[in-house]
Amino acid sequence: MKAQFMTMQLSEFELIKTYFSPLSEQTEGAFNLTDDAAVLEVPVEQSLVVTTDTLVEGIHFLSEDGPKDIAAKLLRVSLSDLAAMGAMPAYYSLAIAVTPFMSVEWFKEFSQNLAADQAEFGITLIGGDTVSTSGPLTLSLTAMGFVKTGTALRRSGACIGDDIWVSGSIGDSALGLKVAKGEFDSLAAENKDYLLSRYRRPLPRTSLGQELINNVHSVIDVSDGLVADLGHICKTSDVGAKILMGKIPLSVAGKEAIAIKPRSIDLILSGGDDYELLFTADSTFQKLSKIISERTNVSLTKIGTIIKTKSVCVLDLNGKRYPVSKAGYTHF
Amino acid sequence: MKAQFMTMQLSEFELIKTYFSPLSEQTEGAFNLTDDAAVLEVPVEQSLVVTTDTLVEGIHFLSEDGPKDIAAKLLRVSLSDLAAMGAMPAYYSLAIAVTPFMSVEWFKEFSQNLAADQAEFGITLIGGDTVSTSGPLTLSLTAMGFVKTGTALRRSGACIGDDIWVSGSIGDSALGLKVAKGEFDSLAAENKDYLLSRYRRPLPRTSLGQELINNVHSVIDVSDGLVADLGHICKTSDVGAKILMGKIPLSVAGKEAIAIKPRSIDLILSGGDDYELLFTADSTFQKLSKIISERTNVSLTKIGTIIKTKSVCVLDLNGKRYPVSKAGYTHF
Repeated sequence: MKAQFMTMQLSEFELIKTYFSPLSEQTEGAFNLTDDAAVLEVPVEQSLVVTTDTLVEGIHFLSEDGPKDIAAKLLRVSLSDLAAMGAMPAYYSLAIAVTPFMSVEWFKEFSQNLAADQAEFGITLIGGDTVSTSGPLTLSLTAMGFVKTGTALRRSGACIGDDIWVSGSIGDSALGLKVAKGEFDSLAAENKDYLLSRYRRPLPRTSLGQELINNVHSVIDVSDGLVADLGHICKTSDVGAKILMGKIPLSVAGKEAIAIKPRSIDLILSGGDDYELLFTADSTFQKLSKIISERTNVSLTKIGTIIKTKSVCVLDLNGKRYPVSKAGYTHF
Repeated sequence: MKAQFMTMQLSEFELIKTYFSPLSEQTEGAFNLTDDAAVLEVPVEQSLVVTTDTLVEGIHFLSEDGPKDIAAKLLRVSLSDLAAMGAMPAYYSLAIAVTPFMSVEWFKEFSQNLAADQAEFGITLIGGDTVSTSGPLTLSLTAMGFVKTGTALRRSGACIGDDIWVSGSIGDSALGLKVAKGEFDSLAAENKDYLLSRYRRPLPRTSLGQELINNVHSVIDVSDGLVADLGHICKTSDVGAKILMGKIPLSVAGKEAIAIKPRSIDLILSGGDDYELLFTADSTFQKLSKIISERTNVSLTKIGTIIKTKSVCVLDLNGKRYPVSKAGYTHF
């Protein structure tokens, strides 16, 4: 790990030694972040799954978000990508461009949250880079995981007639961002808290992803938005999709938000940052879904069908085509 | 690969499709950058070597530097880290935080240079993230390579009595930065060009690194500065070092710069960004050094000795201890 900046209170090397090296302790080949690179082992007959995500202050998180939530979002967004491939998390490297006058306390809380998530998801820090920037705080994380060679889940592979499934509930994160910005003031307090938590701390579906291996045809994690990400599956699979608005799983808090402001349905369809898994499978998955749902403690809901016509069609409660707003987000 | 911003001329997806997907074509598991992550193979009995480097406009490169030089520096700095471990380059992921109004032409030149370097060094793009930022252009690259398991070169391992060796010439990059800033106006034109080129386009010692495997005790690439990086070797190896200023290899241009401004010797010792390999070996390496130097077309120079006293000591032409300036950079 490199170190190229000074804070007001700690040298860069002290910072790495105090807050980041301990996060690498469990991986011998990370060399306590003291060498030019990490040397890692990949188990035999396993492929390496690699994904990179970048968060910029003011764009991907709010300036007032705390270091714990930033750490959680950064790592969990990448874990969600690994989950979408069916991979087991293993290693990550972390690049931080630090703004002037960030406090030691910030790094303490940031690294504490990383440590907690490392324990929860079975992943360890193996290297990175710390640099200074005049601009917004910018963090980039490259996560690595393993999947048995030849079994990785893919976006392509959806077949005409497949059922379309989604995990958990959709729209909570986008609604949570609205709550963070002061909207939905009349929501019940516990519902506000729930939506905020879904916005701030994604729940990567790591176990679910691994359970889907060999059982489904295509998978993506919902980050751009339900309709847009379904579009990605359709585009790479050369098919189309029809989903029923009434089937989209909503949380209790999501339902209350829709009741207050019915047009929020657009946030459900296009808001993104859900980090649920969206996948397609043939009808035999129906039976399996109950077992997997129980085993992973994640609800699974069938929301539509893969069709031949190459577009994503959303049908409202009256069976009429719903005009999806923010169509630019769908790229399809 | 993700895409989360718009330029004035191209959508983010068009940008990835036009300029970045072609860079991933040779690696099937990159899926043309259309999936959530890449799925990569690591050859049997090989370990994966991983390094991350981040460049920020105004800090690691000048605002007036062109996209080709930025691309070269970004990729080659990481390649130098792989070289220092003896690794063969394989894959890289790329995260770019793009400022408003960057032109299509910029991305065209940036990607053209990456393509050229991919061919030269045998590495391919496998994924990444493109996001927008209000702040300085920020680029982070994670490079991956392979090394036969158990043979990776390390910073630790230097033994008392080892000779200290360095490849190529030292100080050119730091002098090149001065030239870029308008200093050393009286230097011969071809020497200015040479120093500028060493500053803008590092020469990672990829082949040399692989040749050093099993033949040397410790290795680092010179990025923080000759004395500082020798300090890193000493610290991780729990030894000290003595080097002779008169033995440090200088280029023709470097010698002219020193003649013009003798105090520039401090830049040679502490300037950094040389991306040469600094290593220690026992006396049997002397004979081997000629063979390896011929095979890799890189000069190798013996500049000192590993000693018991735990400090880095530089002796001047009169055999007196030279007070190294910028001691803060040595972290030792």
